Amino acid sequence: MKRKVKKIAVSAAVLMCTVLLASCGFGGKSSSKNYSTTGSGNGTYQGVIKNGRYRTSKARGVNVSQNDNQYNLKSFESGLTQISKRVFSTKSYIFQEGQYLSSGTIENWLGRKTKSNPDGLNPARGKKSNPNPIYVQQIEEQDYMQESGNSMKLRGITIGIGLNSEYNYQTKTGGPTLTKKISDSELRRQGEAAAEKVLQRVRKKSGVGNVPIVIALYKQAPDDSLVGGTFFAYSKNNGDTISNWRKLDYKNVVLPKASAATTNSSDQTDDDSFSNFKSQIQSFFPNLSGVTAQAQYENGTLSGMHITVTTQFYSQTEITSFTQYITRAAKKYLPNGIPIDIKIQSDSEIQAVVYRNAGSDNFQSHIFDSY
Amino acid sequence: MKRKVKKIAVSAAVLMCTVLLASCGFGGKSSSKNYSTTGSGNGTYQGVIKNGRYRTSKARGVNVSQNDNQYNLKSFESGLTQISKRVFSTKSYIFQEGQYLSSGTIENWLGRKTKSNPDGLNPARGKKSNPNPIYVQQIEEQDYMQESGNSMKLRGITIGIGLNSEYNYQTKTGGPTLTKKISDSELRRQGEAAAEKVLQRVRKKSGVGNVPIVIALYKQAPDDSLVGGTFFAYSKNNGDTISNWRKLDYKNVVLPKASAATTNSSDQTDDDSFSNFKSQIQSFFPNLSGVTAQAQYENGTLSGMHITVTTQFYSQTEITSFTQYITRAAKKYLPNGIPIDIKIQSDSEIQAVVYRNAGSDNFQSHIFDSY
Repeated sequence: MKRKVKKIAVSAAVLMCTVLLASCGFGGKSSSKNYSTTGSGNGTYQGVIKNGRYRTSKARGVNVSQNDNQYNLKSFESGLTQISKRVFSTKSYIFQEGQYLSSGTIENWLGRKTKSNPDGLNPARGKKSNPNPIYVQQIEEQDYMQESGNSMKLRGITIGIGLNSEYNYQTKTGGPTLTKKISDSELRRQGEAAAEKVLQRVRKKSGVGNVPIVIALYKQAPDDSLVGGTFFAYSKNNGDTISNWRKLDYKNVVLPKASAATTNSSDQTDDDSFSNFKSQIQSFFPNLSGVTAQAQYENGTLSGMHITVTTQFYSQTEITSFTQYITRAAKKYLPNGIPIDIKIQSDSEIQAVVYRNAGSDNFQSHIFDSY
Repeated sequence: MKRKVKKIAVSAAVLMCTVLLASCGFGGKSSSKNYSTTGSGNGTYQGVIKNGRYRTSKARGVNVSQNDNQYNLKSFESGLTQISKRVFSTKSYIFQEGQYLSSGTIENWLGRKTKSNPDGLNPARGKKSNPNPIYVQQIEEQDYMQESGNSMKLRGITIGIGLNSEYNYQTKTGGPTLTKKISDSELRRQGEAAAEKVLQRVRKKSGVGNVPIVIALYKQAPDDSLVGGTFFAYSKNNGDTISNWRKLDYKNVVLPKASAATTNSSDQTDDDSFSNFKSQIQSFFPNLSGVTAQAQYENGTLSGMHITVTTQFYSQTEITSFTQYITRAAKKYLPNGIPIDIKIQSDSEIQAVVYRNAGSDNFQSHIFDSY
């Protein structure tokens, strides 16, 4: 029921947007196509602007309703962009939000296969006492474009498919929530099967032609996880069957770890350096109510961290001093050579941010102030 | 009543901190003084660290309880630091949170003058039907230090005094809240009188000696203001009477203005450029629910802006594209040569920040992401 209610709310929001867009568009240019881009930073895609407006996804908002754990939403989208970068260089391609799969299409695909929904990628419910899992939880399309004279031409598509590692269900309304674990091998099998169908269907869409279609498979984290899931395979396909799968080795962890959770010595070193950082800043400053991090590993090596420091500061001067100090402590205690950001916040608002971009040696900081 | 309850709550919090500090300090170094500093950025003070810990204010938390409008708290503290920089160079002096005025002392000074509180800087309440205003609303001490051998020596003090421009009161419990406006001349007169007393009292504190004591007067914004108040005068004093007052000309405004609120043509130009920026980004992107700014003027010239964009984004890719676009729009539409920051946030959390520091031509940006 919860999911249904959320879907309706989002549909209403999307509908409102559509109406707003239509009314805002009134009086705008309609003569010739007028494309431009958002401009890009280092290593990020430019985005498509059409007639002065950002081109939003045809399936805008669907995935918001598909994720009870918002970490799965963010890491799915960001991770998909990272995979696209392996195939479509940020220098040669321009990013466009998905224009070929509509909200209705994706909602049908994410449903169960029934008489009224023959396109459902998930199995029929089956026995009420022992229902079949929902395997395919979210789908996202990204388009990659190149300029061609006065217009933008589609040159590639990336599709992400998010697959549940757990299935939560009730056998009767108001009854206890039961959980089925889905094994990695079953998850992969279901993902590969769904990918074959998705590839065939996307290839047939008008306008897609023979551009490369990248399909990437993502393992959703459980609903109670404090970090999102990870992509584990992708394929680049020029035809309408999957050519071959390339494995991806990502792992997300939350730091500090529970003591028994550490599995190998490289993780242990990273956990130790984070613990040193944490105890250093906690002894420096009273009232730090939390210092936690999300860390990502790629091929067994730490590839980035998002740190959150929750504070109770009493003054702007305390925030300033703390930000100075944490910048020094980060440089001293945290691993070198990877992107890191540190969000310094109270219960209600952000107070400062300290960050180091990929490829940089130095941390930058910004303190939020007020007149 | 409200104020009293808040005071007690904060006192309890401060007491808890003290207890925590004491217990944390247990087992720490006690042999020799061990000072260091937080390290500084460009144009900011280093802060004092003693025995590995940040040296918090002796009156920590008092001003939090003194301000119903938190904008007054932040702008008072940040503004006081700006005034200190006029007298104590960030290159030669090290900042220390106030160590000479305790919570108890400041709370007494902020009270009304009564038999049991002879040090109260505010007048006795007088007639219940027509009470005397509370003029002095907040006081903050900042210490400026220099290294001297193994220790830090006090070299200067800055004291800010926040004065109400409005006094809100009830003639009976549960009755309507009435407001007395306090004129600028009365506010200044009350501030100067309070400053004379504060200077004498601080000068007598043990350890202060003959260091320069800067006193700065601040006009509090009304409780419903969306921007804090401003400092309007300061004096640097080597003795125990105020030498002379130097005027300060700051003004804070909220943009976009109500149409009738514009008073002169330079403001109008700034308001126009902000409006252009706002309409540009609003037409670019659907679902921007708010684009507002705090702007500060110094001597009639725009000296900085804090912009907040409240959004409803559906995906991380939308946030990325919007941040790229707003960085370009800021450079194109917003005034040059002043520090500006733009906070991009949903109802519940920050999504990205775009900022240009003082003295820089370029905007930097950081997008908050998640694994």
